[in-house]
Amino acid sequence: MNALPLNAHPDRLHAYWQASNYLCAGMLYLRDNPLLRTPLQAQHIKRRLLGHWGTCPGQTFVLTHLNRLIVQHDLNMMYVCGPGHGAAAVLAHAYLEGHYSERYPECTQDAAGMLRLFQRFSAPGGIGSHCSAHTPGSINEGGELGYSLSHAFGAAFDNPDLIVAAMVGDGEAETGALAASWHSNKFLNPARDGAVLPILHLNGYKIANPTILARIPHAELLSLFEGYGYRPTFVEGSDPPAMHRKMARALDQCLADIRAIQAHARAGGNAAHPRWPLIVLRTPKGWTGPARVHGHAVEDSWRSHQIPLADPAGHPDELHVLAEWLNSYRPQELFDETGKLFPTLRALAPTGNRRISANPHANGGELRRALDLPDIAEHQVAVSEPGAQQVRATQVLGEYLRDTMRMNLDRFRVFGPDETASNRLSAIYDASGKTWLARTLDGDADGGNLSPTGRVMEILSEQTLEGWLEGYVLTGRHGLLSTYEAFAHVIDSMFNQHAKWLDKAKHHVPWRAPVPSLNLLITSLVWRQDHNGFSHQDPGFLDIVANKSPDVVRIYLPPDANCLLSVAEHCLRSVDYVNVIVADKQPHPTYLNGPQAARHCAAGIGVWEWASTFHEHEPDVVIACAGDIPTQEALAAVAILKRAFGGLKIRFINVVDLFTLMSDHSHPHGLPDEVFDRLFTRDKPVIFNFHAYPSLVHKLCYRRRNHANFHVHGYREQGDVNTPFELAILNGIDRYSLAMDVLKHVPRLRACSAAPLQSLSALQAQALDHAREEGIDSDEILNWRWPAAGAPLP
Amino acid sequence: MNALPLNAHPDRLHAYWQASNYLCAGMLYLRDNPLLRTPLQAQHIKRRLLGHWGTCPGQTFVLTHLNRLIVQHDLNMMYVCGPGHGAAAVLAHAYLEGHYSERYPECTQDAAGMLRLFQRFSAPGGIGSHCSAHTPGSINEGGELGYSLSHAFGAAFDNPDLIVAAMVGDGEAETGALAASWHSNKFLNPARDGAVLPILHLNGYKIANPTILARIPHAELLSLFEGYGYRPTFVEGSDPPAMHRKMARALDQCLADIRAIQAHARAGGNAAHPRWPLIVLRTPKGWTGPARVHGHAVEDSWRSHQIPLADPAGHPDELHVLAEWLNSYRPQELFDETGKLFPTLRALAPTGNRRISANPHANGGELRRALDLPDIAEHQVAVSEPGAQQVRATQVLGEYLRDTMRMNLDRFRVFGPDETASNRLSAIYDASGKTWLARTLDGDADGGNLSPTGRVMEILSEQTLEGWLEGYVLTGRHGLLSTYEAFAHVIDSMFNQHAKWLDKAKHHVPWRAPVPSLNLLITSLVWRQDHNGFSHQDPGFLDIVANKSPDVVRIYLPPDANCLLSVAEHCLRSVDYVNVIVADKQPHPTYLNGPQAARHCAAGIGVWEWASTFHEHEPDVVIACAGDIPTQEALAAVAILKRAFGGLKIRFINVVDLFTLMSDHSHPHGLPDEVFDRLFTRDKPVIFNFHAYPSLVHKLCYRRRNHANFHVHGYREQGDVNTPFELAILNGIDRYSLAMDVLKHVPRLRACSAAPLQSLSALQAQALDHAREEGIDSDEILNWRWPAAGAPLP
Repeated sequence: MNALPLNAHPDRLHAYWQASNYLCAGMLYLRDNPLLRTPLQAQHIKRRLLGHWGTCPGQTFVLTHLNRLIVQHDLNMMYVCGPGHGAAAVLAHAYLEGHYSERYPECTQDAAGMLRLFQRFSAPGGIGSHCSAHTPGSINEGGELGYSLSHAFGAAFDNPDLIVAAMVGDGEAETGALAASWHSNKFLNPARDGAVLPILHLNGYKIANPTILARIPHAELLSLFEGYGYRPTFVEGSDPPAMHRKMARALDQCLADIRAIQAHARAGGNAAHPRWPLIVLRTPKGWTGPARVHGHAVEDSWRSHQIPLADPAGHPDELHVLAEWLNSYRPQELFDETGKLFPTLRALAPTGNRRISANPHANGGELRRALDLPDIAEHQVAVSEPGAQQVRATQVLGEYLRDTMRMNLDRFRVFGPDETASNRLSAIYDASGKTWLARTLDGDADGGNLSPTGRVMEILSEQTLEGWLEGYVLTGRHGLLSTYEAFAHVIDSMFNQHAKWLDKAKHHVPWRAPVPSLNLLITSLVWRQDHNGFSHQDPGFLDIVANKSPDVVRIYLPPDANCLLSVAEHCLRSVDYVNVIVADKQPHPTYLNGPQAARHCAAGIGVWEWASTFHEHEPDVVIACAGDIPTQEALAAVAILKRAFGGLKIRFINVVDLFTLMSDHSHPHGLPDEVFDRLFTRDKPVIFNFHAYPSLVHKLCYRRRNHANFHVHGYREQGDVNTPFELAILNGIDRYSLAMDVLKHVPRLRACSAAPLQSLSALQAQALDHAREEGIDSDEILNWRWPAAGAPLP
Repeated sequence: MNALPLNAHPDRLHAYWQASNYLCAGMLYLRDNPLLRTPLQAQHIKRRLLGHWGTCPGQTFVLTHLNRLIVQHDLNMMYVCGPGHGAAAVLAHAYLEGHYSERYPECTQDAAGMLRLFQRFSAPGGIGSHCSAHTPGSINEGGELGYSLSHAFGAAFDNPDLIVAAMVGDGEAETGALAASWHSNKFLNPARDGAVLPILHLNGYKIANPTILARIPHAELLSLFEGYGYRPTFVEGSDPPAMHRKMARALDQCLADIRAIQAHARAGGNAAHPRWPLIVLRTPKGWTGPARVHGHAVEDSWRSHQIPLADPAGHPDELHVLAEWLNSYRPQELFDETGKLFPTLRALAPTGNRRISANPHANGGELRRALDLPDIAEHQVAVSEPGAQQVRATQVLGEYLRDTMRMNLDRFRVFGPDETASNRLSAIYDASGKTWLARTLDGDADGGNLSPTGRVMEILSEQTLEGWLEGYVLTGRHGLLSTYEAFAHVIDSMFNQHAKWLDKAKHHVPWRAPVPSLNLLITSLVWRQDHNGFSHQDPGFLDIVANKSPDVVRIYLPPDANCLLSVAEHCLRSVDYVNVIVADKQPHPTYLNGPQAARHCAAGIGVWEWASTFHEHEPDVVIACAGDIPTQEALAAVAILKRAFGGLKIRFINVVDLFTLMSDHSHPHGLPDEVFDRLFTRDKPVIFNFHAYPSLVHKLCYRRRNHANFHVHGYREQGDVNTPFELAILNGIDRYSLAMDVLKHVPRLRACSAAPLQSLSALQAQALDHAREEGIDSDEILNWRWPAAGAPLP
C-alpha cells in the first residue's frame, strides 16, 4: 500500500473537483474559448444548450474523493453512474485522467482537445448527455433509469478484488427496478465476490419535482437503509471544506468496513449477511452553480436539473452570470497555458488501469475468457426413430448446464426468478447451490440447495436478475437467465437498452472488446399453461426482440432436446448478442439425433425429409413450423394427411433460427431469396405453425415471393384455463386445424375435401369435448407419437 | 356503530376459518364427496391436481378477521389479494358469504353447489387458481405478481370511506413494482382519500426458495417498514388461539390508528405524511395442512406451495393423510346436512355490500359516473390554412385536461413519471397541484405546485403510476397517464395484464360493469430525442398493444393538435379499452380546423384532398402517413413532388386510428376490403410514412389486395445523438427519402427520374451536412410550412 499520497490534501482535492466542475459546465455551454482566456462572448456559447448540470457536481465530488481512496490504497475500483444524464461528470474525470484522450485521440490534453470535448457533448453527431457505450469506464446506460445498482452487483460477483462504487440518483431510486435491487446485498459473498459501495445521492430534485427519499425524515431514511441491511453513513452539507472532510472520513470508514467484512469472511468466518456500508450523500442540486437566476433559486432546486442559464448568448445578464460562474472555478489555476491540467493536480488521479475511467472490468470484453464447454454428445438423447422418445428438453439442458457450471466455477452463473427448478433445470444444483447469504433454517438442508457459495441466482425480480446478468456479462463473464415466457415482458425495456448498448459498442466504439452474449431461456410457454390460464399466455417477447438491430439479437426455437443442446452450446460460445431461446419445460418428443440436430441448427432451417412425402418432388403443400409444440402438431397433421390422402406431396420444413426467414439483405442469418423460394416454393400453399403471434412470421417474410400463400397459425390471444390441446384448438395450431387448412388451400384437394373436412372437424370437436368433460386431454392426444418410419399407418 | 357482534368470539372465528380452509383444500382435491359424508376414496380425487395451497390459510385467516372488523364497525372494505395463485382463499370466502352463488347461480349454497365450485377450480373450462376478472371482489389479477399494493392505493384515492386491505405476498414483495409501491403512502391524503392497510404475509417461501423478507432479522424488517414510513404491527405464530387473539388486537389497533389519522386530517389538521399502520403477518406456509409427507416437512416449507400431497388417488397412505387433513376441519360441524354453512357461522360474515366479495368498488363499473367534459371547441386551434399555425399539441391538450380536471375534481386524475411538465401538460397545474404529502420546503412554493390536495400524480416509477391508474379505473374512476415513448416498455407487462383483464371481464364476466378506459398518452417521441439519443428511441410499445385483443385496445396517432383534442375527448368518454394516444410534445403545424378534425378522427382515416393533387382522378401514387412528424414529412414530400412533377396525381391519406388498416373481420374499427381498396387502390404504389417500426403496418394489412405495393417508412433502429431531420433521414422518413421512393415506384416517373433523384439525394446530403456541422437543422427545414392552398409554388 502506498504511503499517504499527495492527493489527500483537501485544498488539492478541492482544486481537482473544481477542474472537473469546470469541464462539466464547459461541456454544457462552450463552443469556443474553452479556457476563458478572453472575456466570455455570446459567440462562445453553443447554439443549442442541451445537457444536465444538476447531478454533475455531486458526482465529480464523489469521483474526486474516490480517486484519493484508490491512490492511497491502490484499489481496483469501478464507478457506476446511476443518476440520469450524468455523463458530463464521468467524461470530465475520464478526460482529466487522460484516458479519454487515449480512447479518443482527437480530444487531446490541451485547449484544442478540451474544446473538442465540449463541442461534441450533447451535440448532434457527438456524444449523449448520459453514459453509454461511448463512455470510458461505464457499464451502465444512463438513459433509462433504475439499473445502476443491479449492474454494480453483477460486476462485483466473482471479482473478489473489485470494489464497485454505485452512485444511485434519488430520482432513479423511485423506480421499481432500483427499489428491488437494494436487496442484492443478500446475494453477495464477501469471501468470493467483490464489494459494492452504494452512494445514494440526495440532491433533492428530479426533472420538476422533489424526490421522495430527499423528503422523508432523517430517521426514516436511516431506518430504510438499515432495513435493507446496510450500515449507512451520512455526508450532508454544502460547505465544500467541511464536505471534503466528511467525505474523506466516510470513505475511509467504508473501506475499512469492507476490508473487515472481507477479511473476516476470507479467514473462514461466517459469511452470512454482513452489513455492508452505504453512503447517503446530500448535496445541493447544481452545487457551485448559479444560486439564483431571474429571481428564482437555481442551485439547490429542480431549476438546475438541466441548463441553469437558459440563454446566455441572448441575454447579457445571463452571460455575465455564466462568466462569473465559470471563472469561479479559476480555470487559470487548474490548467496550464496549453490547456493541460497542472501536474500537481494530475498527480492526484490514479494511473494506468487504476484510473476509474480505464478500469478493465468496465471494458469487460478484454477480460473475457471463453467458457470451457462439455461435449454435448454426452448429453444428447438417443433417438431410435424420430419422435419415439419423450424427454423434457430443459431437463437435458439442465444437465448440460450443470457440467458447464462445474467447468467454469469462476465465470459462469445461472439466473432465474425462483423458477430454476420449476423450469426443470434443477440438475444444476448438483454442481452449485443457490446463492443465499440471508438466514437459513434447519429445514433448508432438505432440498433447499441454499449456500453462500452457490452460483445459481434466484430472486423473485426479473429486473434484478436481468440487471445482475447484464453487469456480469458486461464485465466479461457468462450467464443464462431462464424465465416464464409471459413475464419476460417485465424486462422488455431492460432488454431493449442492453441490445442498444451492444449495437453501439459493436459498431461505433472500436475500443470496446466483444462481451459474452446475454442468454435468455424463455420457457413455461404459452401452450402449456393449463391452470395458469390467460394471464400466463403471452409469447410477444419475440416481437420486442425482432424490433432490435439484426446485428445483436438472435431468436432460436429448437424443436427438441438435441436441438436445444446444440443451440445452447452455440449461444454460450457467442459474443455480443442477446440470444433468446424458446423451449418448453414439459416432456416432448425428440426427433433428431445429435449429428442431425447439429446440422439442422447450424443451417437454422431445413426440410425434414422423413416427415415429408414424395420429398423428391415439387410439393403440393409446404407444412412449416417453428417451436417445439407447433412442430409436434405439424407432424401430427402430416400423419393425418398421409393417412387420408396417400398421394399428397408434403414438404415439411422446420425453422430453428427465426431470422432465416428474413432476407439476407436485412439480416446476416437471412436466406437469399432464391434459397427461400426453393424451400417454400414460389406458388404453393405454405401452412406455417408458429410458436408465437402469427404476425411475426408475416413481418419477417412479407417481401418473399410466395408470401401471399403463407397461412400462419399461432397464438391469437384466445385462451383461459385450458388443457394443452384445447388451447391449441382455440388458437388453431392443432393438427386438425392445420390439416383442414391444407385441404382448403391445396387446389386439387378442394374438390374432394367436404367429407374429410367434416371428419376433421368432428375429431376436433370430440377432442374439445373430452378436454372439457374430463379436464384432461384424451389418451389419443396425450400418447400420440410420430409414426415410426415405414410402420403401417393406423 | 354496532354493538360487539356475535362474530367476535374466538371459537366462532376459528370455526369460520376452518370452513374456509376446508373449502380451499376441497377445491384442490375433490371431484366428489364434497362434505366427506362417506369415507374418502380414490375416485373422489380430481384426476389432475393443480392449485396452490401454501398461501391459502394465511389469507383465509385474514379474511375471517376482516369480516369481524367489518361487522363490528360497519366498514366499507375491499380486499386485494397479492400472493401468487391465491384465488382459492378469496373464492372460499366469496362462497361462504353467499355472494359467489349470486354471481354464479349454479354454485348453490349446498353440497351440489359446493362440489361445482370444487370441480371448476383450476380445471379446464373452469376458473384459475389466481384471482382474475372472474373472481368476485377482486380488482387484481394474481397471475403476474407485484401490483397489489399500487392497485390498492389506486382504489383508495378519492374514496374517503373506503379501507383497502392489501395482502402482500412475501414472494411478490421481491418484485420491483411492489418494492417501489410501498412509497405510495406519500401520495395518500387522509382528509380526502380512503385508507390502505397493507398486510405483509410472511409465509416464508416462494415456489422453491425462502423469501428475503422472511429471512432478514426482525430488527431489519421493522426498520425497513418504519423507513418506508409505516407503523408496523407484528402478528406472528402458528398456534391458532393465540394468533386469533393477536390478529384481533392488531386489527383493532390498526383501525383505531386509521380513524385517528383521518379524524385529525379531516378536522383540518396537518395532513402531511402520517404513519399509516401496517401488519406483518408471519404464519407457516400451508398452515393447518399436512405437517410431513414422505419424511419431508410440508407445512411451513416450500413443499406446501402447491399440492401438499401429490397423488392421494394413487397412494393409499397419501389418501389417508388427506382424509385426516380434511376431516381435521370437522366439516360436519361447519356445514349442515344439505351442505349449507350453519347459520351461527353465516352470521359472522357481513351482509349485502359490506361483504368483501360484494364490495361495489371491486366492480367499479357499477359506480362509474361519466366525466363532465369541456367543450373541445373552446380549445381548438384556429387554422387559417392547413399547416399555417404551429402549436404544441400536448400543450393544447394540457389546457383541455385542466378544464376536465376542474369539472371532475372527485373522479379524475392525471399521472406521469415526473414528466407532466416536460410533456407540456403543465396547464393542468392551474386546476390542481401535484399530490405530495411528504415534507415541503420554503422554495417549493416557487413553481413546485406541490399540494396534499393535488390530483396530478408524479413519481419516478412508471410501474407505480400504472398500478395506481389501474386501481383507479377498475374502481370506476377516470385518468390518463403520460409517459416518454421509449420507457413505456417499462409497463409492457402491466399493460398486457390489464388488457387481458378487460378482455375477460368484457366477454366472460357479464356481472362486471364496464369500467372507464385506461388512457395512455405516449409522448416525447422517438423523432424528437435530440441529445437523448439512441436509448430514448423506441416506438415499439405499439407492437405490444397490437398483440392484444382487438376488442380492448385502441391506438390513435393524431396528426395535429385539433385531432389530438378530438381523440382525447373520445377516449375520456370510452369504457373498457386501453387507449394509446401517440402525440409529440414539440411544436408542429395544425392542419385541420375543429370540425374537420372531428370528422377525420371519427372516420379514423381519410383522404386529405387539399394535400392531394388531381384528387378527382385515380392517383399515380398514394402517399399515406400516420403520426404527427411523419405526416409533416409526407406533406413536405408532396410539396416537392408537386413542384417537380406538376402532372403527378397524388392521393394523400392520413391515418389516425391505426386499426382501420386491419380488416373489418379482424378488428371492429377495420375497414372492409372494398373501402380499403378504394382508398389505397388495387395496384398503385403506396408510400406510407409511419411513426413506429414499419413492420407494424405490414402486420396490420398484409392480407390487403394492394399490400405488395406498400412501401412503409418508419423507425428502423438507426439513431444516435441527432438533429430531428438527421434522424428522419437515417431512418428514411424524411421528405427526400419519401419523394425518392415515389420516383422509384411510379412507373411513368422511372424513366425520367435520374436527374430528380440526384437532386433529391443532393438536398438530403446537404441537410445532413448542415445538421452535422451546425448541430441544428437548417432554417429551411426548421421553418418549412405547407404551402398555403392556391399560393404559388416556390
